[in-house]
Amino acid sequence: MSPTQHASWQRLRALAESWRKLHLRQVFERDPDRATRMTASAVGIHLDYAKNSLDQEVLDALIELAKDCDLAGQREAMFTGQRYNLTENRAVLHTALRQQTDAPIVVDGDNVLPHVRAERTRCYAFAESVRTGHWRGHSGQTITDVVNIGIGGSDLGPLMVCEALAPLADGPRLHFVSNVDGTHLSQTLKRLDPARTLFVVASKTFTTIETLSNARSARAWLVEALGSESAVARHFVAVSTAREKVTAFGIDAHSMFGFWDWVGGRYSLWSAIGLPIMLALGGARFDELLAGAAEMDEHFRAAPAERNLPVLLGLIGVWYVNFLGHSSHLLAPYNNTLRRLPAWLQQLDMESNGKTVHRDGSPVDHATGPIVWGEPGINGQHAYFQLLHQGSQIVPVDFILALSQRGQLDSHLPTLVANCLAQSAAMMRGKTAEEVRTELTARGMSAGDIETAIPHRVFPGNRPSNTLLIDALSPHRLGALLALYEHKVFVQAAVWNINAFDQWGVELGKQLASDIENRLKGNEGKQYDASTEALIALAAAQIERH
Amino acid sequence: MSPTQHASWQRLRALAESWRKLHLRQVFERDPDRATRMTASAVGIHLDYAKNSLDQEVLDALIELAKDCDLAGQREAMFTGQRYNLTENRAVLHTALRQQTDAPIVVDGDNVLPHVRAERTRCYAFAESVRTGHWRGHSGQTITDVVNIGIGGSDLGPLMVCEALAPLADGPRLHFVSNVDGTHLSQTLKRLDPARTLFVVASKTFTTIETLSNARSARAWLVEALGSESAVARHFVAVSTAREKVTAFGIDAHSMFGFWDWVGGRYSLWSAIGLPIMLALGGARFDELLAGAAEMDEHFRAAPAERNLPVLLGLIGVWYVNFLGHSSHLLAPYNNTLRRLPAWLQQLDMESNGKTVHRDGSPVDHATGPIVWGEPGINGQHAYFQLLHQGSQIVPVDFILALSQRGQLDSHLPTLVANCLAQSAAMMRGKTAEEVRTELTARGMSAGDIETAIPHRVFPGNRPSNTLLIDALSPHRLGALLALYEHKVFVQAAVWNINAFDQWGVELGKQLASDIENRLKGNEGKQYDASTEALIALAAAQIERH
Repeated sequence: MSPTQHASWQRLRALAESWRKLHLRQVFERDPDRATRMTASAVGIHLDYAKNSLDQEVLDALIELAKDCDLAGQREAMFTGQRYNLTENRAVLHTALRQQTDAPIVVDGDNVLPHVRAERTRCYAFAESVRTGHWRGHSGQTITDVVNIGIGGSDLGPLMVCEALAPLADGPRLHFVSNVDGTHLSQTLKRLDPARTLFVVASKTFTTIETLSNARSARAWLVEALGSESAVARHFVAVSTAREKVTAFGIDAHSMFGFWDWVGGRYSLWSAIGLPIMLALGGARFDELLAGAAEMDEHFRAAPAERNLPVLLGLIGVWYVNFLGHSSHLLAPYNNTLRRLPAWLQQLDMESNGKTVHRDGSPVDHATGPIVWGEPGINGQHAYFQLLHQGSQIVPVDFILALSQRGQLDSHLPTLVANCLAQSAAMMRGKTAEEVRTELTARGMSAGDIETAIPHRVFPGNRPSNTLLIDALSPHRLGALLALYEHKVFVQAAVWNINAFDQWGVELGKQLASDIENRLKGNEGKQYDASTEALIALAAAQIERH
Repeated sequence: MSPTQHASWQRLRALAESWRKLHLRQVFERDPDRATRMTASAVGIHLDYAKNSLDQEVLDALIELAKDCDLAGQREAMFTGQRYNLTENRAVLHTALRQQTDAPIVVDGDNVLPHVRAERTRCYAFAESVRTGHWRGHSGQTITDVVNIGIGGSDLGPLMVCEALAPLADGPRLHFVSNVDGTHLSQTLKRLDPARTLFVVASKTFTTIETLSNARSARAWLVEALGSESAVARHFVAVSTAREKVTAFGIDAHSMFGFWDWVGGRYSLWSAIGLPIMLALGGARFDELLAGAAEMDEHFRAAPAERNLPVLLGLIGVWYVNFLGHSSHLLAPYNNTLRRLPAWLQQLDMESNGKTVHRDGSPVDHATGPIVWGEPGINGQHAYFQLLHQGSQIVPVDFILALSQRGQLDSHLPTLVANCLAQSAAMMRGKTAEEVRTELTARGMSAGDIETAIPHRVFPGNRPSNTLLIDALSPHRLGALLALYEHKVFVQAAVWNINAFDQWGVELGKQLASDIENRLKGNEGKQYDASTEALIALAAAQIERH
């Protein structure tokens, strides 16, 4: 069933009419108390959502819509291990990876928790052996550098967390190679000592072509440098479930760490895919990351909608996408170490909700996932924020700022904080012609020049945003923040009645790529459209010449 | 005057009606020759634009629109040094920074070329002295690491070029610090030896608060480590025009490199702002970069519209933004070292064209700049490409692939190329229910399961894209590619009749930030909306506690 069939949807459409004409500046003038009401907190994260183009009436209707769409029932189906990912006939249990209690979660008659914890114990033990120098390379030296080879969910999650918590890192240096473009690997290896480098090859099936190409080239580099095939077992481990392929590669079966089909790639950093995080930070900090996420899980599961952070963020997003027509969403983290958070969320959100059929296969009659993008906010201020302030489209923003972090430099902090708060204020209120006139008059500009200047210097305002203030950028809070966004994405999928946990949209490209690669190597293959044929010919000729 | 007043605009609106109903697959079936016609090349860059939702009739109308908007006249006004940036009463002459001929360009009665070349000679000489080890640090050691401190245009351009050409780098290691969040600086300095580190402080006015905060903290770190204020002159240089502020900081006036008010920040990598590039790669390669850009400038200035790469890309973009309603644009570079190209273009495009008043101050009655975003394409395939294939909005894509680069690894190249070409083919053609049925039947799936699966596995296709194949990722070709996008942005601004060269939209945030920073430090200041006031109070209390 489409959410558009619910009375609450129709009600929201009607409400949107008047909100298209309202300016947030007026809204605040009429009801300053909204700032007090429109906040919610959980797990050290304070959400201020007062600067959004909505009020209690809209929020009530959105919460009604969530009820109509059985958000609560869908949520329980996920948490309790039902086959919620119905197109792949799988449970969806990344939350089990971080569950702190022992309440069993049963899939196919089997409690998954003991498996989760046993595998995590293996990962921690391995990470610890590398971190303490107990694990040695082929020539007896300790490991100083780890290269994670993976792509998509096997890259973005661990990379983002390692960056986010870099000031706390006390293990080997981490590097991430994902692109099959050989420069990614060759530039990374340039500065590494093979005798002291460990490779983590992350591919569930051990067939991902980008990852395996990089793994094979890394293997060749290592074997050539260390002079022996037997070095592979001391310098390569795998995060995979394909035992035969892994051992054929030369990796010891004891050095293979697994996960389960109910962990989607983009939700996998909590599993063995997080091995790079454990190597960089240690098991204790990984435990904190999990605990923070679990606390957010509990909040999501238990808190009433009007105080539930993922529900609020999700519904506000639905309001913008479906009723006010804003098709993109900006994530503006102000902490520099969160600079890869947007790329991680981009995968999480767009791969989950970039769908156009309902769970039952009927075509959607409403917009779904927005484009999610972003760069650190303060850099954005010196770049693309121009369009946010004065461009022709409205982009709802999440401002994210953690107020404490190791290495933050006390003298810089007020500037960082002030800029973050100033942007949301500026976007909301704007600047009127009268304000510009007053300012330029005070600067002594002539009346004629002022009138010419005004239209260029007016800010329309009425640009909505959320602000998330986090008390500290600790592993615990980061875990909570990531779980918050995971569940936000879930909420939207539940309302849209789409399956957030499959990704059929990546299949076609893979098929064609394998076929075209054959063509480029001079073999026979399918014929494509005339443009693709011409490009294949042109590229093949150039590759030949190398 | 608004472009919507032209007959060509109305004609395009009419044409768009039918294009909304056409599928590119049909279009190719009816007219396969379009693949031959719809290509253009310049400076080693081959553009295939056949996979766009347009034909010759649309293209003719777009070219007519460009004529109606006096694109050619506006272009000449820029190249010849007219005060084309009229809201700031300045010429726009980044092209003069790379001009290869001696044809004078006169601003205020003065030929700018001798100044450009003299300053570049100074930059090259300094870079060479560092690269050869002639320039020594305070304790007599050579420089191994350079930290560029700048933000916006003083960061994104040089950073992107240094990354793009990293396999050719043979100078000191480059680092870039931009975010005022202290972790950016402290994490960078962690691994550096003060005695062998050089800082380039890039700020035209030497007042940019983020840059100066970082510069002051870097200075304190250096002075503490080297034990003397006099060390500053051997470890800091400036790219700036504020001589007094620079020398007060402790930088020698001879170590200050300047540029001019007719170089906008986002167009400044060709000036002394490119000093990090010169340090990493040397003057000869910087010369190649300039020469490639200059060749593209000549192409843009002279080639007929139908073979003019920037004109084509610009007009195709106008078609999508204004007539088919696509509000974002994805840049998908396949070469890994181009990974920061989207961030650079994001600033270039969104800061230039995120405007809603015409040059004369009248409000626009049409959409302007799109949201520009992107991550390396092959990573995108494992992430957000799901939405591109099966989501509810259409995102036009530029696929960018250079077919040769040092360090590319021959064995990886066919995979990289195949993936790039496969994606544009898949997006264009899609996959029909019948194709899915045939495929799943061949795999032995039951008829009932097949019908359930089909809607989830169908790809609607009809997703448009450009493909840019570049013969090699050399400095010369990179220069051409960057100039191509600079001029693409220019073309769109010329059609929209907006000023692409000011950025008033960044001012308000700066004013408020300075004011709120005062408040956070416990001083009096303006009152804000209730939400901002609450956030200020919350943040101030936390900062206090540190």
